[in-house]
Amino acid sequence: MRELAGQIGLNRQTISMAYELLEGESLIRSEVGRGSFVTSPAKVEDPAKPLNWNELLSASPRLDPPPPILRQAPISFANSRPSELLFPLEPFRATCEEVIADETVAASILQLGSPAGYAPLRTLLARDGAREGVVRQTDDLVITNGCQQSLDLIQRILCSGGNSTVLIEDPVYPGLKNVFLSAGTRVAGVPVGPNGMDVDALAKAIQRERPRALVVTSSFQNPTGTTLPLAARYAILKLAREAGVVLIEHDIYGELRYRGDALPTIKQLDATGDTILLRSFSKLAFPGLRVGWVIGPKAFCTRLTEAKQSCDLHTDQLSQAVLSRFIESGRLAEHRRKMIEAGAERLDATLAACAKFLPPGSSYTHPEGGMNVWVTLPGGLDAGELLARAQREGVAYLPGRYFAVNRDHSSSLRISFAGLAPDKIRQGFAVLGSIYRSEWQRMEDARSFEPASPALV
Amino acid sequence: MRELAGQIGLNRQTISMAYELLEGESLIRSEVGRGSFVTSPAKVEDPAKPLNWNELLSASPRLDPPPPILRQAPISFANSRPSELLFPLEPFRATCEEVIADETVAASILQLGSPAGYAPLRTLLARDGAREGVVRQTDDLVITNGCQQSLDLIQRILCSGGNSTVLIEDPVYPGLKNVFLSAGTRVAGVPVGPNGMDVDALAKAIQRERPRALVVTSSFQNPTGTTLPLAARYAILKLAREAGVVLIEHDIYGELRYRGDALPTIKQLDATGDTILLRSFSKLAFPGLRVGWVIGPKAFCTRLTEAKQSCDLHTDQLSQAVLSRFIESGRLAEHRRKMIEAGAERLDATLAACAKFLPPGSSYTHPEGGMNVWVTLPGGLDAGELLARAQREGVAYLPGRYFAVNRDHSSSLRISFAGLAPDKIRQGFAVLGSIYRSEWQRMEDARSFEPASPALV
Repeated sequence: MRELAGQIGLNRQTISMAYELLEGESLIRSEVGRGSFVTSPAKVEDPAKPLNWNELLSASPRLDPPPPILRQAPISFANSRPSELLFPLEPFRATCEEVIADETVAASILQLGSPAGYAPLRTLLARDGAREGVVRQTDDLVITNGCQQSLDLIQRILCSGGNSTVLIEDPVYPGLKNVFLSAGTRVAGVPVGPNGMDVDALAKAIQRERPRALVVTSSFQNPTGTTLPLAARYAILKLAREAGVVLIEHDIYGELRYRGDALPTIKQLDATGDTILLRSFSKLAFPGLRVGWVIGPKAFCTRLTEAKQSCDLHTDQLSQAVLSRFIESGRLAEHRRKMIEAGAERLDATLAACAKFLPPGSSYTHPEGGMNVWVTLPGGLDAGELLARAQREGVAYLPGRYFAVNRDHSSSLRISFAGLAPDKIRQGFAVLGSIYRSEWQRMEDARSFEPASPALV
Repeated sequence: MRELAGQIGLNRQTISMAYELLEGESLIRSEVGRGSFVTSPAKVEDPAKPLNWNELLSASPRLDPPPPILRQAPISFANSRPSELLFPLEPFRATCEEVIADETVAASILQLGSPAGYAPLRTLLARDGAREGVVRQTDDLVITNGCQQSLDLIQRILCSGGNSTVLIEDPVYPGLKNVFLSAGTRVAGVPVGPNGMDVDALAKAIQRERPRALVVTSSFQNPTGTTLPLAARYAILKLAREAGVVLIEHDIYGELRYRGDALPTIKQLDATGDTILLRSFSKLAFPGLRVGWVIGPKAFCTRLTEAKQSCDLHTDQLSQAVLSRFIESGRLAEHRRKMIEAGAERLDATLAACAKFLPPGSSYTHPEGGMNVWVTLPGGLDAGELLARAQREGVAYLPGRYFAVNRDHSSSLRISFAGLAPDKIRQGFAVLGSIYRSEWQRMEDARSFEPASPALV
């Protein structure tokens, strides 16, 4: 070793480490007092046996098939999210600068934080929640990485063990369904009608399924855009309380009301205080900043905070501090006004386009806010099959099948309108309308040429 | 209703909603054509039945008891994290400003992102990983909210179903143990000696436990600060491959080497490419910004990305963009130099203080990097019992018991030195040394005064 080190001008320790490496790989063999010997090729071990990943990963539950491949379409109704063009870039920059300008704040957000959330943001949200009547004395508030994580954490603390059932809306957005399925929890769908979750169907489902929890969207449900009337909110609360079911109120679109009067959340109506309310910034402000929150009884929030810590310690503090300042400075309120103005125009354009372009016999929901309208085509037209044609003509959407829980939604589709300017919405509907109408006409014609059944004599 | 609306000057719709509310709460009863009637008190339903949260939450597995309550101590060795005083505030600010100054970048980080991570950061980390030899052609890279979430996601896709065992180090930091326990996965500890995980004990544990996975820290393990020698890295790899065990290499302190030569990671040595490598920014740069990453075979990473999406859609993009720019600008490399300089001083001060202040018969590890030294007291001294006295004198630490998996560590403690300046380290050890020495002396004295056993005649 000394000799070799001298010859090639390297440190002796480096040479020793190289020998160690070679020996570790069984390429040489050291014999004390004799030296190191190159092993014969036959003695080299078999190539290391790789793992069988397919087998190892098979234990993890399979989710539903992923959505159809959507090409980059010039007009896409496929994403339930705000348009980039509406992002308040200047106010966002000003907010970031204010946050990092303060040395104490900057140092505190860079250090490890609390699993329940960044204290100034938590205080702010709890104060606003108390004013609104959704945070009571018996409640607590936990900040998460958005509504998806809120659902995931709740699933962990309520459904672990895997032999429980959760009732969800049918149709529902796949992220909600998958959070339970991926953990091996059973889900059962409760039909959604023009006024949100069907209360009679819920009563039957509770009897039949004996669920542990129920997730319900009170306003502007995704994908249907529907809202529960006040009486339905009471009725759902009563059913859940009587059956001892945990009621989870999903309310991430609630602030995006463009028309009509706001309704109280189920959480506000719940005298027991047991309803769990989920909220988020991602539909209103910045989806790329992952911050949402959960309001619920203290005992529940304590366990939720433990699960959060075990999951990822805490939510990113830079984003929490930026959002906190964004609220405090009044910029969120101003941005909300703009979003509501833009949303109202886009919703109007969508409903007008539905009336004008869809074939006769179509039906569609009439939301007063949110980001989505649910369209159902007549006469057995399949929205999934017709998607390819729409994409060839530059228009994309998600077919109803993708949102199904137990029912068939093949003749339906979700129109997410919030990301598109009104003229794009009209253009997109003109394309869809012409495809759907021509297909509908073809089927009508085929039907009228069908030979009549032979008369029974 | 019209009358009441006129009387109190409110919209009729508001009055109608108030009636609906009262009826929902069963306080009034409407009869068509007759009007609304106040229900008799007897008819008001029983107060809503609250949920029994203790029962509902009982399904979720209990974790180990939380750590001892640590008072705000003037000198705390309790946190394995960098000092706030070392945070690069000015470079951080400059980086944030650069990120938000670019309109395209700002808009893209505010929009929903990819579950696998922000593309520019992923590309950068993959390129650096390829240069270092830890990212092969067959590998992929997934960004998470830090190492805690990496472990949590891996647990989900490898251990779901709950009847698998994972081997972990004993002692180990509780976050690692709890991520498996909270999901109902069994853990078994493999003893850690002065050179990291004990290879012979591992061989026996694999035989005995038939584990699905093994989590091993190659450098500067938490809590012991120990590092696996090259030969042990080879040996562990060989044991894992022969038994078909998934090897997860935890390497979040590896870059904080203050002395000695860097060793190749196990991932680099693994010819199969199957080793999964976990890394993070949180020990090196900003713990409050939650960004880590996983490198592993493509099939594994595909499933990991699905789990990530189901968990929380994606990691916060503002932090990812800031960290990406922090690397690109060379500021991370510069900050690393400063951290290593500060760490070296602090490690030296710690080891010198161990030699000077600890009572005779104490032992302690001799790390070459990282943030922790593991101290074991002589003669049955209990580090947990003596913590209260230390806290009264203004010094805090975490007792060994808190890091236990299967073995007893009551005479040990973790000294996290990275957050304290050298003079604070010396002051803290002077206090601890005097407590431990006096207690050790008291026990020695007690022993010498013990009456001799009566002679057997």
